[in-house]
Amino acid sequence: MPQHKNLNVVPFVSVENMMNIVTTDGIAETIEGIANYILQDFRKWQSFDKTPRVASHSDVGVIELMPTSDGELYGFKYVNGHPKNMKEGLQTVTAFGVLSEVSSGYPVLLSEMTILTALRTATMSALAARYLAPKNATTMTMIGNGAQSEFQAIAFQKLCGINKLHLFDVDPTATRKCRKNLASLGFEIEVFDTPEDAIRGAQIITTCTADKQNATILTDNMVGSGVHINAVGGDCPGKTELHADILHRSDIYVEYPPQTRIEGEIQQLGEDHPVLEIWRVMADIQPGRTSSDQITLFDSVGFAIEDFSALRFIRDRLSTSDKFEQLDLIADPDDPRDLYGMVVRSKKKGLFDA
Amino acid sequence: MPQHKNLNVVPFVSVENMMNIVTTDGIAETIEGIANYILQDFRKWQSFDKTPRVASHSDVGVIELMPTSDGELYGFKYVNGHPKNMKEGLQTVTAFGVLSEVSSGYPVLLSEMTILTALRTATMSALAARYLAPKNATTMTMIGNGAQSEFQAIAFQKLCGINKLHLFDVDPTATRKCRKNLASLGFEIEVFDTPEDAIRGAQIITTCTADKQNATILTDNMVGSGVHINAVGGDCPGKTELHADILHRSDIYVEYPPQTRIEGEIQQLGEDHPVLEIWRVMADIQPGRTSSDQITLFDSVGFAIEDFSALRFIRDRLSTSDKFEQLDLIADPDDPRDLYGMVVRSKKKGLFDA
Repeated sequence: MPQHKNLNVVPFVSVENMMNIVTTDGIAETIEGIANYILQDFRKWQSFDKTPRVASHSDVGVIELMPTSDGELYGFKYVNGHPKNMKEGLQTVTAFGVLSEVSSGYPVLLSEMTILTALRTATMSALAARYLAPKNATTMTMIGNGAQSEFQAIAFQKLCGINKLHLFDVDPTATRKCRKNLASLGFEIEVFDTPEDAIRGAQIITTCTADKQNATILTDNMVGSGVHINAVGGDCPGKTELHADILHRSDIYVEYPPQTRIEGEIQQLGEDHPVLEIWRVMADIQPGRTSSDQITLFDSVGFAIEDFSALRFIRDRLSTSDKFEQLDLIADPDDPRDLYGMVVRSKKKGLFDA
Repeated sequence: MPQHKNLNVVPFVSVENMMNIVTTDGIAETIEGIANYILQDFRKWQSFDKTPRVASHSDVGVIELMPTSDGELYGFKYVNGHPKNMKEGLQTVTAFGVLSEVSSGYPVLLSEMTILTALRTATMSALAARYLAPKNATTMTMIGNGAQSEFQAIAFQKLCGINKLHLFDVDPTATRKCRKNLASLGFEIEVFDTPEDAIRGAQIITTCTADKQNATILTDNMVGSGVHINAVGGDCPGKTELHADILHRSDIYVEYPPQTRIEGEIQQLGEDHPVLEIWRVMADIQPGRTSSDQITLFDSVGFAIEDFSALRFIRDRLSTSDKFEQLDLIADPDDPRDLYGMVVRSKKKGLFDA
């Protein structure tokens, strides 16, 4: 009988250990690491078992499960989206995730993913921009300076060479927080009073706002030719950020069309409106940006494979780290048919007498 | 701003703590407790958000996510099914689950569910039998004496008054284990060499075998009138235990038809073959058994609401228990828009210097 030592004990990365890993390695370096894993996985896109996320909607938010598998590993993320949470001092988005062995079904990692989701979302945006943004882009406008904004800035600095930021938020305190957090990281930062002013001179426009509604953060006349739009905040049914006219002028790149058509900016368009799949660009099957006056749009909603890649990155990172705990999550009787005996004998053994 | 103290810390019930809770309270008493929660939830069946489980199949097994919500709480279970695991010294089925607040999306419980699933499956079987088995049933045949068998026996003893067991398994060591485990619990136990012999004289027949194939544990001529069949082992596509002719003679009760038609014994029947929903019986909308010669069949596959009920039971049980740990699973920045600041300041604060 083969021995599976300690398979019942699942490595667990707490919020504290995730912060420890990320700050020890560096946020930009972690983003670069995750980028490599996303590229590996997106380049073998067709080997993945894919499904739109399984969402449970309520009046105030959504709870989602995002599973995927490449045949060797299975991963899923639990994530909520509750825009009203912020007013109550809670996170809009919190998440955790699990990676398992397909061959046994046993989990091999449980990890916090609130921080990891912020990292992988920013990583994915910057990776897409590497293929879609104008060559030699230096300036990015960020509309929406909330919890995701600093991660976006650092990812674009590390992966795309962006060193100039234009900030705008309807709430000036968010902008002040973002500016302060980024102050020592080598950016040239300008703050603007209107989105129109903030956009001027930027080659990349990132929209990342959180209201659960069809908003119009960008109107058509605000967007000139040649820019790349990184639309992050439109990510569930009834929640968009761009005026539909912009979409009609753009070449639209998405993660997984069946999910993006429900959740992304393109929910405003017809079901057969042409979109391009970003994995094809990453796999060199299709080109990214082909001309300098093209408007490119990455309609980011976040797909399960990105979480899978991030979990794989963390799992491999743990191989040379002690920044995790062991969780007694899986029952492991000596005789697998004798679950009952294990339970009953646990008491007789005095396991709980301490 | 309302205070959500410690919402970032999620109560976690490990395998050890689950064993401690269950053995301290008693297995039969725990089953009775879970039964009350299942009845509560099944009687308000229509208020639940229901979906067939989300399965990821491979050659050797399946990994599933089973979500549901009643509008106040959201729950899901992760569960695998790998019949070949047993030969490798691993559990065929392992599971864990999470319960969350719909209003915030924050998890309020993470629990092992390998043991809890065994308990809720047995509980559900015995609950169904309370409505479907012949009056004054005293004898149950158990075909398949593996990890689920003792829990089934105890549930039927506690909830249905069964005190006589007929055991059969193709593997005599499984039967010996089952008999030994149940020896001191007040059953009269007989062991048989063939399923035919084991069935004779029993009012209830429980089939609970684990091969992932269309098996014929029971043939038509083995099943006389008036019995109740509790078919537990046919629970995924391509895995059944009963000959189709038995199904045609039976009144078939199921949990959630869209799932059972894919996974249960009734996958052998036409899509429109009439089935009855067990929740309607529990809610007094339809009768259970109506005559003494009727063959009733509970085609059990396990539904998300049963796990939801079991998680609710454990969560409430924790209110007067210290048998859980606190898991640092959810990031909780002072300013919810300042996730980045929380991460960076964690290092500056020397949080990891200890």
